[in-house]
Amino acid sequence: MYLPPFEVYILGTSSAIPAFDRYPSSQFIHINGSYILIDCGEGTQMQLKKYKLPSNRIDLILISHLHGDHIFGLPGLLTSLSLLQRQKPLKIIAPQSLKIILDTIFTESEAKISYPIEYIFTQPTHPELIFENDKFKISTVPLIHRLPTTGFVIEEQPADRKIIKEKVQEYAIPIHQFNRLKKGLDAEDEQGNIIKNEWVTQDPPPTRKYVYFSDTALLSSIPEVAFNADVLYHETTFLKEHQDLAKITMHSTSIDAAQTAIKIKAKKLLVGHYSSRYENLDLLLNEAKTIFENTELAKEGKKIVV
Amino acid sequence: MYLPPFEVYILGTSSAIPAFDRYPSSQFIHINGSYILIDCGEGTQMQLKKYKLPSNRIDLILISHLHGDHIFGLPGLLTSLSLLQRQKPLKIIAPQSLKIILDTIFTESEAKISYPIEYIFTQPTHPELIFENDKFKISTVPLIHRLPTTGFVIEEQPADRKIIKEKVQEYAIPIHQFNRLKKGLDAEDEQGNIIKNEWVTQDPPPTRKYVYFSDTALLSSIPEVAFNADVLYHETTFLKEHQDLAKITMHSTSIDAAQTAIKIKAKKLLVGHYSSRYENLDLLLNEAKTIFENTELAKEGKKIVV
Repeated sequence: MYLPPFEVYILGTSSAIPAFDRYPSSQFIHINGSYILIDCGEGTQMQLKKYKLPSNRIDLILISHLHGDHIFGLPGLLTSLSLLQRQKPLKIIAPQSLKIILDTIFTESEAKISYPIEYIFTQPTHPELIFENDKFKISTVPLIHRLPTTGFVIEEQPADRKIIKEKVQEYAIPIHQFNRLKKGLDAEDEQGNIIKNEWVTQDPPPTRKYVYFSDTALLSSIPEVAFNADVLYHETTFLKEHQDLAKITMHSTSIDAAQTAIKIKAKKLLVGHYSSRYENLDLLLNEAKTIFENTELAKEGKKIVV
Repeated sequence: MYLPPFEVYILGTSSAIPAFDRYPSSQFIHINGSYILIDCGEGTQMQLKKYKLPSNRIDLILISHLHGDHIFGLPGLLTSLSLLQRQKPLKIIAPQSLKIILDTIFTESEAKISYPIEYIFTQPTHPELIFENDKFKISTVPLIHRLPTTGFVIEEQPADRKIIKEKVQEYAIPIHQFNRLKKGLDAEDEQGNIIKNEWVTQDPPPTRKYVYFSDTALLSSIPEVAFNADVLYHETTFLKEHQDLAKITMHSTSIDAAQTAIKIKAKKLLVGHYSSRYENLDLLLNEAKTIFENTELAKEGKKIVV
């Protein structure tokens, strides 16, 4: 069965201080011909180039919060796109103050951006459907961190219903009725007889869902919209033995991440945002796996199929 | 003859759009136990780590101008130093508006910087001695660019005069008179006889000078302070065949860089700030060499001894 692409490319996995060749947070998403960037730590434009990902095809940038390791790559990426003469608008979904930061930088460095930037501001108090088109929808989820922070849920729109090949002849379905059937409506044959949708179509594949939770302390309540994620990316800044640091800095341990994966019935857990104190990431992986077996380490350059 | 270290480490050689694994402008200078950063393009903190250079020993950052490829690494470097609990002050020599940019970023991302930042503001109208200590002095030189821009001249302070070994016995120079002689003063022996400085000392090695000119169009008049550089770093954004682009963007060609090296009687020319249109940098090198033979390409990770 053909599934349109829904892929996550990892550009950065480091928490605040980059170490061991790990870059700060950024992910590039390809969903059925659309390209989304989530967070944009320093060096993101170089990482996109390194992994041959098309930065100019990004139409949507999602920013979880305004800590530097999630935004310090934005001024460089946005001005490079401008130097490359981008014309089409770019949407940025982010906390409101991001606009103050970028406007100040562009003004003081006299950067004239060649394309319109359209902001959609997030709020950290309740979940919200914040963007939708015919292919996917994006919701925000409040996270628990030192600054206003949201997670993101990216979910495919349902595909068309599938017309069963053999039924086309059996019911003599006219071609011009196909679209009605694909959309779930009943149809008619040339004689005006009703063709019930359920007789001739089958369900499309279930919609796929990617959930991005970084940065956050352990979430006590999680909204329904994040449930049943095919892949949950959850920050794992610390090991359980450093849970005191996790508490102070409002980050998560590997155990927290795994518990969240269980709670929302995720199929797969992807962990990242590693503290610079850990060179060996298997410690974090193995700790998460004690609770949630299907866990994978995010690594720069890795592609995850949702 | 022992010479204290005076070394330039290249961290980035790219102009505005990073390409071919080249990073935007930044150089790390080690001069006799002091550490200086010149410009700080995106990714500088990672480059410092990659080449095992001690970012926390930097006490002085020089910023030529506020285009993004010279400053977008600053917020990340400064916050990382803070996360590493730096306490000692950091001096930043830069155009005044840099403070507006950094203050806005630190305020909006709620970054509390753990150490004092002391600004010394440059002006682009006339050359100026802008910093001096017992080891070196730094002067600014106005450059010609789209934004207010200065070059920098870093010059050693003269070393002590050298007392000629054999003369110590011959003139029975008391040890407590050595310092006077080293400073160029006359001394006395235990009987009160004058010992002329010129009888017993020789000149110290000549002071060394590093000149950094980026970004700039061809300079028509260059102040005396930049003359006789041991090493001149000069931007070479374009080949002569693209001099129309150089003119529009107020950058230099390899020919411009070489002519400047001749004009200021530099011993060596180091070129960098390459346009992303050139993958093969030998084109730029060879063009400069047609006019100034002792030319070298700046390359990420390269160390140049001044």
